Amino acid sequence: MKIHVVNPNSTASMTRAIAEVARATARKGTTIVASNPAQGPASIQGYYDIAACLPGLMAEAARYRDIDALVVACFDDTGVDALRAMLDVPVIGIGEAAYHAASLISARFSVVTTLPRSVPGLEANLRRYGLMARCASVRASNVPVLDLEQGGPEAERLIAAQVERAVEEDMADCIVLGCAGMSDLRARLSKTFDLPVIDGIGCAVGFMETLHAAGLSTSKAGAYSSPVLSVSA
Amino acid sequence: MKIHVVNPNSTASMTRAIAEVARATARKGTTIVASNPAQGPASIQGYYDIAACLPGLMAEAARYRDIDALVVACFDDTGVDALRAMLDVPVIGIGEAAYHAASLISARFSVVTTLPRSVPGLEANLRRYGLMARCASVRASNVPVLDLEQGGPEAERLIAAQVERAVEEDMADCIVLGCAGMSDLRARLSKTFDLPVIDGIGCAVGFMETLHAAGLSTSKAGAYSSPVLSVSA
Amino acid sequence: MKIHVVNPNSTASMTRAIAEVARATARKGTTIVASNPAQGPASIQGYYDIAACLPGLMAEAARYRDIDALVVACFDDTGVDALRAMLDVPVIGIGEAAYHAASLISARFSVVTTLPRSVPGLEANLRRYGLMARCASVRASNVPVLDLEQGGPEAERLIAAQVERAVEEDMADCIVLGCAGMSDLRARLSKTFDLPVIDGIGCAVGFMETLHAAGLSTSKAGAYSSPVLSVSA
Amino acid sequence: MKIHVVNPNSTASMTRAIAEVARATARKGTTIVASNPAQGPASIQGYYDIAACLPGLMAEAARYRDIDALVVACFDDTGVDALRAMLDVPVIGIGEAAYHAASLISARFSVVTTLPRSVPGLEANLRRYGLMARCASVRASNVPVLDLEQGGPEAERLIAAQVERAVEEDMADCIVLGCAGMSDLRARLSKTFDLPVIDGIGCAVGFMETLHAAGLSTSKAGAYSSPVLSVSA
Amino acid sequence: MKIHVVNPNSTASMTRAIAEVARATARKGTTIVASNPAQGPASIQGYYDIAACLPGLMAEAARYRDIDALVVACFDDTGVDALRAMLDVPVIGIGEAAYHAASLISARFSVVTTLPRSVPGLEANLRRYGLMARCASVRASNVPVLDLEQGGPEAERLIAAQVERAVEEDMADCIVLGCAGMSDLRARLSKTFDLPVIDGIGCAVGFMETLHAAGLSTSKAGAYSSPVLSVSA
Amino acid sequence: MKIHVVNPNSTASMTRAIAEVARATARKGTTIVASNPAQGPASIQGYYDIAACLPGLMAEAARYRDIDALVVACFDDTGVDALRAMLDVPVIGIGEAAYHAASLISARFSVVTTLPRSVPGLEANLRRYGLMARCASVRASNVPVLDLEQGGPEAERLIAAQVERAVEEDMADCIVLGCAGMSDLRARLSKTFDLPVIDGIGCAVGFMETLHAAGLSTSKAGAYSSPVLSVSA
Repeated sequence: MKIHVVNPNSTASMTRAIAEVARATARKGTTIVASNPAQGPASIQGYYDIAACLPGLMAEAARYRDIDALVVACFDDTGVDALRAMLDVPVIGIGEAAYHAASLISARFSVVTTLPRSVPGLEANLRRYGLMARCASVRASNVPVLDLEQGGPEAERLIAAQVERAVEEDMADCIVLGCAGMSDLRARLSKTFDLPVIDGIGCAVGFMETLHAAGLSTSKAGAYSSPVLSVSA
Repeated sequence: MKIHVVNPNSTASMTRAIAEVARATARKGTTIVASNPAQGPASIQGYYDIAACLPGLMAEAARYRDIDALVVACFDDTGVDALRAMLDVPVIGIGEAAYHAASLISARFSVVTTLPRSVPGLEANLRRYGLMARCASVRASNVPVLDLEQGGPEAERLIAAQVERAVEEDMADCIVLGCAGMSDLRARLSKTFDLPVIDGIGCAVGFMETLHAAGLSTSKAGAYSSPVLSVSA
Repeated sequence: MKIHVVNPNSTASMTRAIAEVARATARKGTTIVASNPAQGPASIQGYYDIAACLPGLMAEAARYRDIDALVVACFDDTGVDALRAMLDVPVIGIGEAAYHAASLISARFSVVTTLPRSVPGLEANLRRYGLMARCASVRASNVPVLDLEQGGPEAERLIAAQVERAVEEDMADCIVLGCAGMSDLRARLSKTFDLPVIDGIGCAVGFMETLHAAGLSTSKAGAYSSPVLSVSA
Repeated sequence: MKIHVVNPNSTASMTRAIAEVARATARKGTTIVASNPAQGPASIQGYYDIAACLPGLMAEAARYRDIDALVVACFDDTGVDALRAMLDVPVIGIGEAAYHAASLISARFSVVTTLPRSVPGLEANLRRYGLMARCASVRASNVPVLDLEQGGPEAERLIAAQVERAVEEDMADCIVLGCAGMSDLRARLSKTFDLPVIDGIGCAVGFMETLHAAGLSTSKAGAYSSPVLSVSA
Repeated sequence: MKIHVVNPNSTASMTRAIAEVARATARKGTTIVASNPAQGPASIQGYYDIAACLPGLMAEAARYRDIDALVVACFDDTGVDALRAMLDVPVIGIGEAAYHAASLISARFSVVTTLPRSVPGLEANLRRYGLMARCASVRASNVPVLDLEQGGPEAERLIAAQVERAVEEDMADCIVLGCAGMSDLRARLSKTFDLPVIDGIGCAVGFMETLHAAGLSTSKAGAYSSPVLSVSA
Repeated sequence: MKIHVVNPNSTASMTRAIAEVARATARKGTTIVASNPAQGPASIQGYYDIAACLPGLMAEAARYRDIDALVVACFDDTGVDALRAMLDVPVIGIGEAAYHAASLISARFSVVTTLPRSVPGLEANLRRYGLMARCASVRASNVPVLDLEQGGPEAERLIAAQVERAVEEDMADCIVLGCAGMSDLRARLSKTFDLPVIDGIGCAVGFMETLHAAGLSTSKAGAYSSPVLSVSA
C-alpha cells in the first residue's frame, strides 16, 4: 500500500526526518510518500498556526491521488476531520495514533510537548477522543518546535525534566512525545526512564496498515460524508 | 463600539440578513460591520466546509483593523480559536453565544440544525465548551443551509417537527437554532411552542457589548497568545 | 430596563459597593436597583449561610414588582433556581455570569475565592453548569468576606498569592474573582498579572441587557415553570 | 440510637406514613422521631418549593437537640448540605440513600418521580453525587405528590407505565421510587416487574444505623465545618 | 441474618482480623462467618493478584449456602460482579462500601492505599461507580499489604504522611483506608487529623443489614442475571 | 513475529474460526497460534463467565512462552489487565482493538452484541477506556454466542435489525460487532448498510504488528508491573 505522510508545516528538513521514521516502521510492501506545503507556517505552535497551515495541507492532500491512506504528521492532528470528509482513503493524525497506542500498553500516559500555548489544544483533542480518561498530564517543555531540529543537549534536558515530573508527580507509566520533531529522543528517553516512550509517526503508519489489511476506511455515512462542493468564485 | 460580524461563507444575501439581525439587538452607539469572503464555500455544512472557509474568514478578519470585537456568524464557531490568537480584540462564535445564553435561561436546551453531517461537530463543540451538560439533544432537520434562504413552509415544517420532538422526547425547555440562516423563524417558533427560542447572532452582539463595558478581552497569557509569525514563502 | 441587584447578605455597605460596580458597566437607559435583606447572614460563607439567606433573598425579590431582571449578587449563585421558578423575569447569579464570561475570553480560568469551606459549593456549581471543563482550579485565599470590606494590603496580598499559584501551577490564563467583595481588586490584579480578571457583577448586568435586547427570558416550560402555590398555614 | 426524620413539607399525614416506613426497617433499639414544619409548602415540587421549605426544615432540625442522626425525607435532598454544616450529627437525604442502595444491588437503575419539573433537579443531584453514571433515566409519571396520598389505581397505573418504559427502553434492572409518597407501591411494583424497587426512607434509616455503629459522622474539616454565625438583626 | 465475609487472599491471620472488625459493627442478631481460600495469592496487590484469587474466592462463596449476604473483604472489590451473577444474595465489596459511606458524610474524600500499582485499579473502580466525582485523590503509601499485618511505627508513619498530604494538598475532608489490613489505624488517624477515617469492613456489614431490613437484593433482571452454566469438561 | 490468540472459552470450533480471521489479516511473517482452555465456560456471556474463564485463560497464556504478543479473543476483554501484569509481551483484547479502530475511521460507532446481560460490562469497559465518548450505543441482538456458531438467517436477521436501529435511531456511522463469533457477517453487513463494520480480531492482530514494529510493549512501570508472586499452598 501507499501512505501519504503530510507534514503540514513548510519546513522540508522536518519532513525528511518524519519520512525516515515512517519508513523505519513500515512493513515491506508499504510505500511512504512524504511531502509538505511550500508555503505556510514553518512550525505549528498554537491555534493560529493550526488554522494557517490548513490551505497548504489540503492542497498537498489533493495533489496525490493514487494513495491508500493519509497521515497528518502534526501532533495537533490539524485538519484530520476535514481531510476525512474530503478523501475516500483513511486519514489519521500522529497525535491520535500515539494516544491510541499508549492506551494499549499503559494505564496512565503523559504527553510532553513543546510550548505551553499548545497544551489546551492537545487537551481539547484528548477530551474529544475520550482518551483524556487515560492521560495523567500534558506537560510543556518550553522547547520551540524548530529548536528540536537542531537538537542539542539543552532541548533534551528540558524534555527529560518534564518526563521525570510526569513519572514522579503524575504517576505516568508511559510517555507520549508531543511533537513530530521529538522522534530522535524516543529510544534514549525510554532507556533512561525504563518505560515506553511513544512517537506517533510509526504508530500512525502501522494503524494504516492494519486498517488496510482489515478492509476498513473512513465512514462516509455521517460526519465524514463527502462534501457537496459549493465553492463560489 | 464597532463590531465586525463575519459570515464565513461566501453567500452575500446571507450576510445581509445576519447584519440585520445583529443591528436589531445592538445598543445605540454600537456599529455593526458585516462582511463575507468573496470566495470559499457558499454554505458551511460539515468538516470540509469548516476548514475550507478558514482562509477567507481569516483574510476578512485581517481586512478590518479599527474594530473592537469580531463575531463569527457561523453556528459551527469555525476559526474562533485561531482568530482569538490572531486578533487583540475579543472573538465570539454565534454557536457558543447561543449555548451560553440558553444556559442562563433554561435547564435543558436542544439544538435544531440543518444536515445530520453537522451534528457531530456541534456535539464536539458542546463537549469542549462543557455545555453538553446542559444540552438535551442536537437534532438535524435535513434542511440544507441555502434552502433556508428561500424559506418557505416546507423548511419551517421540518424544523418545527424537530422542535416538537426535542420538547416531547428530550424534555427540552428551550430551543437553540443551529444555523445563522434560521433567525427568521425565531419569533414564530417561540410563540408556537411557548418557550424561548434562541438565535446566536443577537446574543453574540450583546455579549461583546458586555465584555466591552466590563473592560474584558481575550487572554493573551495562554492558548491565545499572539502567534510568532513564521510563515515561509 | 430596570435590573434589581439583590445582595443576599444583610451587609448594607457591601450592597452599596455592588450597586456602584453594577452602575459602572450598565448602559445608558438601564436602571440599577440594589437591595439586601434587613436580616439574615452578614456574609455568605458555606452551605449554612447559603440556605439561611434564602428567606430574606426571596422576600427582597418579591418586594420589587416592576423590574425587568434580577441579579443575585452572591458568588455562590444562591437561590437562582428558586427565583427563576418564582419570577417571570430572567434571573442570573454573578458566579455563573463570571464563569460564562471567562469561557468567552480564555482557555482555562481559575477562581480565587474567600474561605476553603466555600470551594466545594463553587465546584458543585461549576459541574452543574458544565463549566468545570473550562476551570483550571478553585482556590481559597483564606480571607473572610467581611475582611474584604475593610480591604487593606494583607487581604490583597493573600489573594494575589493565589492568583500567582493559579497562573504558575494550574496554567490559568484568566482569573475569576470568587466573591462580590473583591471587585475593587480587579483592575490592579489584571495589570499586575497581565491577564483578564473577571468580576461577575458587571457581566451579569451586561448579560441581562443582552437577554432583554434579544427578547429572551427564563423558560417556563420545564424546571422553572411557575410554582403551584400550596403553602399551608 | 435516635433518628429524627423530617418531612420538609407541611402535610402531616405524609409525615405519619413516612414514620411508619422508617420504623418498619429500623432495628430494635432505634427510635424514630418524625416531624414536619407547621408552615411551608404542602408538597415539594420543583425548585421554588425546595427553597421555600428550607426555613421550616431548618427550624425543625433545630427543635430536636438530643438526636443522633437526621434524615431529610424528601426525595430532592433539599437542605442536606446546609444541615450537615449546621448539625454535629450525620444528615442523609432519602434521594441519595436510594441512589446509593441502588448502586449496591444493580447495574443500571431508573428513577420514577412525580412531575416533569422535578426531573432536572434530581438529575443535577445525581450528577453531583456522581451516581448519574449508574442511572439509566429519570422519568416523570405526571402524578402530583399529593395525589399519591390518596393513592388509587390511576396514580399506580401511571407510575407502573413509566417503570415498564424504564425496563423496556432504558434497560433498567432496578427502580428507585422518586418521592417519599410512593412507598406503598414498592412491594407490588417489585413483584409485578420482578426486579428490586427501592424506597429511600428505609435505606436512609439503615445507613444511619451503619454510620452510628461504625462511629462515623459528617466531616467538620471542610465544606461542612460549623458556620460562624453572623446573623444581623 | 448471616453474613459471609470472604477475604480473597490466603492469609488466615488477616481473615481473623477482618472478622473481628466485622463483628464489632454488626448488630445483635447478625452472624459473621469469615473465611479465606486455602490457596491463592497471600495478598492482593495489583491486577495479577486480583485475577489469581478469583477461583479461590468463588469456591469459598460456593461453599457456604445458607448465608444471607456476602462481603468481599478486599479493597479492590475483586469478583464482586461475578459473585452478584452467581449468588442470589446481595454482594458488596469493602471498597465500594467505604466510598459510599464517605459520600454520605463528606464533600471530598481521599483514599490512602498500599502500593502504587494498585492505584489505577482503584481509580477505575471509582470511575465505574461514578464516585470519582467525590474523590479528591487516591494515594499510595508504599506499604505492602503484608507489612500492615506486622504493623509497627514505620507503616503507620508512611500512611499518616499520605493522609497529611491528602488534607493539605488535595483538600480532602475525609479519608478512606484503602486496604482491609489498615483497620487498626482507623481510630488513631481519625483523632490525629480530626476528620472521619473510614474502613470499609464495618460499612459493608451495616449496608448488608440495611438491604436485608429493606427487603432488597441483587437485581436478577440485567447484568447480574443468573448464568446459564455451560462449562465443558 | 508470533502472536498467541487465546479464545478464553472452551469451544474449539470457535477457536478455529477465530484463527482463520486472524490469519486473514496478519502480514506475511506473522505466525498466529490459536488456543483455548480445555475446560471452563463454553461461551462468555456476562460477569460470571468472565470470571469463570480466567483460570483457563491464564493457564493458556502461561503454556506458550516463545510468543511476541497475546490477543484475548473475547469481546469483553476479560483478563487483559491481569495478563498485562503477568506477561512481558503486549496484550490486547479484541473489544478494545475494535473500539480503537472505530475511533480512527468514524465519528460515532455503535456496538451490536449478543445478550442484554453483556451490555453493562461492555459499557463499563468503554467508560474505562474513555471511548464511550465515541460510542452512540451498545445494543443487544438477543442471539446467544453459541447460536452464532450455527449461523443461519435468523441470527443474522436479529443482528441486522439492531444495526438498522443503531443507524436510524442512534446516528451511528460505523458498527462494531460485539462478539468474536460474528466475524462471518462483517462483509455482508457492511455492504447492506454501506458503512464500515468492524470485527476486533483482525484489528488486534494488526495493532500487535504495529506495536512490534515500533518497539513498544506493555509498561512495567505502574499498574502492570510484574507481580511479586506470593501464592501460598
